[in-house]
Amino acid sequence: MSNLLAAGDLARRLFRELERDTADAPGVTRDAYGRGEAVAHAMVRREALALGAQVRADAAGNLYATLAGADRTLPAVVIGSHLDSVPHGGNFDGAAGVLAGLAVMAELRARGVAPPRDLVVMVTRAEESAWFALSYPGARAALGRLGPEELSTPRGDTGRSLADHMREAGFDPDAVARGEPQIDQGRIAAFVEVHIEQGPALVAMGRPLGLVSAISGGRRYPRARILGRYGHSGAEPRPTRCDVVPGFGDLIGATERIWDRHEAAGHRLTITFGRVESDPAQHGGSVVLGELGFSLDMRSDDPAVLEAVDGAVRESFIEIARTRRLVVEPGAPMAWPAIAMDRGLMDRLARAGAGLGLDLPRLVSGGGHDAAAFAEAGVPTAMLFLRNENGSHNPDETMDPEDFDVAVATLVDFVLGFAAA
Amino acid sequence: MSNLLAAGDLARRLFRELERDTADAPGVTRDAYGRGEAVAHAMVRREALALGAQVRADAAGNLYATLAGADRTLPAVVIGSHLDSVPHGGNFDGAAGVLAGLAVMAELRARGVAPPRDLVVMVTRAEESAWFALSYPGARAALGRLGPEELSTPRGDTGRSLADHMREAGFDPDAVARGEPQIDQGRIAAFVEVHIEQGPALVAMGRPLGLVSAISGGRRYPRARILGRYGHSGAEPRPTRCDVVPGFGDLIGATERIWDRHEAAGHRLTITFGRVESDPAQHGGSVVLGELGFSLDMRSDDPAVLEAVDGAVRESFIEIARTRRLVVEPGAPMAWPAIAMDRGLMDRLARAGAGLGLDLPRLVSGGGHDAAAFAEAGVPTAMLFLRNENGSHNPDETMDPEDFDVAVATLVDFVLGFAAA
Repeated sequence: MSNLLAAGDLARRLFRELERDTADAPGVTRDAYGRGEAVAHAMVRREALALGAQVRADAAGNLYATLAGADRTLPAVVIGSHLDSVPHGGNFDGAAGVLAGLAVMAELRARGVAPPRDLVVMVTRAEESAWFALSYPGARAALGRLGPEELSTPRGDTGRSLADHMREAGFDPDAVARGEPQIDQGRIAAFVEVHIEQGPALVAMGRPLGLVSAISGGRRYPRARILGRYGHSGAEPRPTRCDVVPGFGDLIGATERIWDRHEAAGHRLTITFGRVESDPAQHGGSVVLGELGFSLDMRSDDPAVLEAVDGAVRESFIEIARTRRLVVEPGAPMAWPAIAMDRGLMDRLARAGAGLGLDLPRLVSGGGHDAAAFAEAGVPTAMLFLRNENGSHNPDETMDPEDFDVAVATLVDFVLGFAAA
Repeated sequence: MSNLLAAGDLARRLFRELERDTADAPGVTRDAYGRGEAVAHAMVRREALALGAQVRADAAGNLYATLAGADRTLPAVVIGSHLDSVPHGGNFDGAAGVLAGLAVMAELRARGVAPPRDLVVMVTRAEESAWFALSYPGARAALGRLGPEELSTPRGDTGRSLADHMREAGFDPDAVARGEPQIDQGRIAAFVEVHIEQGPALVAMGRPLGLVSAISGGRRYPRARILGRYGHSGAEPRPTRCDVVPGFGDLIGATERIWDRHEAAGHRLTITFGRVESDPAQHGGSVVLGELGFSLDMRSDDPAVLEAVDGAVRESFIEIARTRRLVVEPGAPMAWPAIAMDRGLMDRLARAGAGLGLDLPRLVSGGGHDAAAFAEAGVPTAMLFLRNENGSHNPDETMDPEDFDVAVATLVDFVLGFAAA
């Protein structure tokens, strides 16, 4: 793969520039509709123009860089991802997918060939829900699928609405609110997103690149509570306690057994407590706790598994409340469906990889991505995962530049081979 | 018991006055060396003078109301407790013990009899460590046992030192710092404290009054942590996770088994997690937690049991760290010894109760009290617990006035019977 010199050089240079210009120790901060994201979008615009692409931004601020194809009547191939990061995040989450697209353009230009059909590098906005608590609002706005009420979602740090931030950045939230699609999805043959993996599955397999078969669906209880009765640690006898901690211990044990059972049956899933909190106004060294807040997140690519896991978790809530004389309040759940990637595109990418001597393992993405918005809208969609040791959303994200080159080489062959529909 | 009209009337009137004058909805606030405590001390001074007692305050602000005995050469009986409360606490914790002493004086006066030896109602200062994070500094100052360095302990809310607050309230922290005893402990035949129970043990037994046999010792890890590695809930595979929550689940389970084992062997103990906290800067719905803070409190009246429980807990820390690939940092422990009450005084109080037709059950106090300071100093000490349904340190503390009357009647007979040494 080391023969893709143009692509590799461009990407290395742009990763360095991005890291330098959005540094916010530790890590980088590229705030959605803020300075960090704007800096990154401006860099991509400049580079795309230099590569001979036509560039436009839509009403939501998503950027499209189009390299004309040999047959402009054919629907385009879109390679896209986002450029915002979480606060103090890593340099690769999102950016890898965008720079992969630019690298493909650079390689085609170096070879002096046009893609068989238009090649679009799409840069979305505001994918990280750390800023606006929404799933992929930029990508959905592009597809005309962002609800007008969602535009009033505040940015966590500023408290100002998505519409405000969009307008301030020079875009048109009113057009977004009217639900006008910013792209013609009938003219998209494929949306392909390259992304670093968010858990070290490829690391464990020793593979640089994987094919995402599905994006997991999930159920989450973001604000669940166990309620008991506060007491004095030295004085409240065991038989009269309504201590929430042993109840929480039972719940942890129950979720582990549920996970064991489904795993033994060959299913893929995760069950995770992402937050555990006693009340700082009431807790203390000599207190029997009367309340514990927690979040519980369940994910699987199989809707039936998710349904069964959620059912078993809810049964354990009831069981724990009964046996421990507690109240379990699950609170309002969140749910999002599992989304399968397009089989035809997966086969095309697998063939492109095979041509380079790669056997691409198939993986499920536990995290959500812009690709999910496109797949949900009915656009043929695929994702490639890049090996990454240290998870995402942190300054320690890693990406071996040679693994990135493998992804770009695969994409180049995929793009060049995608002539007929 | 309903024949103690003078005592009952006085107590009911003073409980109402206290509640009214220190109300701070919900509950009452009687801040140590602050307005709330001062109001309460002033009320007791006024009433003690009206009952014919001599009143003095010591260098630390502890109040002594002395009713002269028939034989003034004999060491005194001291009935005492504190008048501060936790913020938004209940009306009875501390106050019950002081008003019980005044009620005894009122009853003797109504009967027109002098006690066989001096009767002192002692009102301590700053017993609630919610204000100054110290164990019974008022009582220990009276005994000349408060370390000079302890006088620089800040009050949690004001941040100003115990010495400052003492001086501002009109007392003499320099004399306290010199370790000068404020009372002659050789002249105390008995220190007796009446206190509401802090867990509903007497409620469960259906008894109004109990005899404390010992004040539990304790070990506490106030700032323990489990450390793992943060990850993405959807993406981090189970085998590579270092998730602190299952480790915490194991720890809860281990403490329950330790408790079961010692309970089955007939020991009295408590094991309590009083605080459980993930990091608000890092936790969230899609996070695998990499850190969890907690406090763990262990108490028993048997030092050998406490030692064994602590040892087993520390073994479980090591086991969990090993099996879950986590780090457990116990942090600096706190420890305080168990203190037995005086057998001779317990027998006298039991006989006084028996004379009234009461069989006083013996209980261990899980919480610490001023009585512990006297017992540690070698003063013969006893405690009576009053039935209370709702724990202490909260606005829902309850105390049936008739149960209080039972305690006063028992004390009256105890005082009148305590002629010879």
